[in-house]
Amino acid sequence: MSTIIKAYAALEKGGPLVPFEFDPGPLRDDEVEIRVHSCGMCHSDLSMFDNEWDNTVYPFVPGHEVVGEIVALGRDARRVSVGDWVGLGWFSGNCMACHQCLGGNQNLCAHLQETIVGRYGGFADRVRCQWQWAVPLPKGLDVATAGPLFCGGITVFTPLVECGVKPTDRAGVIGIGGLGHLALQFLDKWGCEVTAFTSEGKRGEALRLGADRAVSSRDPAEIRRLNGELDFLLSTVNVPLDWSAYLDTLGPKGRLHFVGVVPEPIPVPVDKLLHHELAVSGSPLGNIATLETMLRFCARHGIAPTVERFPMSQANEAFDHLRSGKARYRIVLDA
Amino acid sequence: MSTIIKAYAALEKGGPLVPFEFDPGPLRDDEVEIRVHSCGMCHSDLSMFDNEWDNTVYPFVPGHEVVGEIVALGRDARRVSVGDWVGLGWFSGNCMACHQCLGGNQNLCAHLQETIVGRYGGFADRVRCQWQWAVPLPKGLDVATAGPLFCGGITVFTPLVECGVKPTDRAGVIGIGGLGHLALQFLDKWGCEVTAFTSEGKRGEALRLGADRAVSSRDPAEIRRLNGELDFLLSTVNVPLDWSAYLDTLGPKGRLHFVGVVPEPIPVPVDKLLHHELAVSGSPLGNIATLETMLRFCARHGIAPTVERFPMSQANEAFDHLRSGKARYRIVLDA
Repeated sequence: MSTIIKAYAALEKGGPLVPFEFDPGPLRDDEVEIRVHSCGMCHSDLSMFDNEWDNTVYPFVPGHEVVGEIVALGRDARRVSVGDWVGLGWFSGNCMACHQCLGGNQNLCAHLQETIVGRYGGFADRVRCQWQWAVPLPKGLDVATAGPLFCGGITVFTPLVECGVKPTDRAGVIGIGGLGHLALQFLDKWGCEVTAFTSEGKRGEALRLGADRAVSSRDPAEIRRLNGELDFLLSTVNVPLDWSAYLDTLGPKGRLHFVGVVPEPIPVPVDKLLHHELAVSGSPLGNIATLETMLRFCARHGIAPTVERFPMSQANEAFDHLRSGKARYRIVLDA
Repeated sequence: MSTIIKAYAALEKGGPLVPFEFDPGPLRDDEVEIRVHSCGMCHSDLSMFDNEWDNTVYPFVPGHEVVGEIVALGRDARRVSVGDWVGLGWFSGNCMACHQCLGGNQNLCAHLQETIVGRYGGFADRVRCQWQWAVPLPKGLDVATAGPLFCGGITVFTPLVECGVKPTDRAGVIGIGGLGHLALQFLDKWGCEVTAFTSEGKRGEALRLGADRAVSSRDPAEIRRLNGELDFLLSTVNVPLDWSAYLDTLGPKGRLHFVGVVPEPIPVPVDKLLHHELAVSGSPLGNIATLETMLRFCARHGIAPTVERFPMSQANEAFDHLRSGKARYRIVLDA
């Protein structure tokens, strides 16, 4: 096997993805190398491509929803063997030594390595990561669509675990896109009564994905009709909405949880928090054990992202499609 | 025993408290009557006295931190007997039939009766309530200082239970006054490492009450020096502070919990919630079972409010003292 990795990179801000080869150097002891079978395309690939967060390093190789096969093991790698099918998401390394890492919260480590930040991602024939982030795919999981679970999936699955969502809860999902369409499936199989907050055109699709009802995400009057009915409300959007109306949908001890970054601070009326014992919270992706738990849950319940496929050589066209807002609901690139 | 109750009432907004007698009518089947031994004076008595919330009904009899003796039982009253020592707090009745009441969350019932809202409170020789809110004082609890536990105490004790605060947590209390001085004692005995956020003049007192360290509540630079150190932060104040600095004191999975109403909505940056898996929440007083639990905890650990005493006939002077901000830390009126 050649040591050279063939990837697609933007060489500068605004530049298109072009074929790009690099020599990754010797495999580190704690790393594994994955032959990429497919790679999801996430909105944060696009944000990094556009250098929206001012932290993009060029040449920039996107891709952090990798599915592939282990082809090489560093000396200290554990758990996986050559030939194993694994996935790799947003994180590709953590310190393994801090309080958060030792406590199983690797996603809250202060020294995380992010797959496409300052290193080369999964729009490539091979990609590397610390062994613990190459998470084996369980039997029964559809390999072709598994990629988006490693970023979009874990982002919306983690809150169900961390917030202690119960099967008896009345749950809502704000925004039915790449994240929300997975959240609906998770919450449905979790046993919850599920409300989707979405645009008019996606109502039918939301019901098909597991929602029990669909409500406008933009009409405060329609939202407020759910006065006090919800226990758990997951926001997957990155635009400002009428948060006051959404808080009013929560019943006693309800929680509004964010997994999408909203640009402006949201105004939280403390008297509402107090009177109904509400909480407003957020979470980033998820830890390794929860990734494993999610994959087993998906395999057992047949949960999978709805994807549109492009060959990896058409990654630029795929970016255009993602940018248009028309992707339904995740894009996967075949290597 | 006369049926006439002798109380102190404001006859109109701005009017002083004056002796006021009323006939409460026949005792309802679900009620008990308490002979008032003492009654705490809470800041919300003052807010109602000033009609700050526009819901004061005149004649207005304040008082919702009652300690006394059961002198009469309605036909359906349970748990207490004539002669029992009990306390009565902000709530004096609930519907007992809704989902929240049946679930033990009586403080979240939509049909709560509040002791001093639209009915006569505890600045009186006797006061009535639904039997379930007359909570027996456990053996070993100091009767003379127990009153403030029924409003101030339960308000800061409930979050420890509801938010699942652990003895291993690093906890902070913002504002060391009527509420905060009890929160410090609770958290200390709960096993936590406790930080008090307070004014310069109260630092020594905060340490005496159980804090391990005291930090300025107003100096963002000093607050931010605690970068990421706290797991749980309880705000007892009702003034706007630098909430962004306070959020920065929270470590991963930390929570900022409000028990004091801050007038303006607080701006919550969603990216902070996400990156560190933070929560912002609130709670109102507490339910009956938690009241019982708190009283046992206080009796076992010798926790008591620090009080200043006035005879009930000097309630106007006591209001002036409370209004001056100089009360250390709760006022109790002796009937």
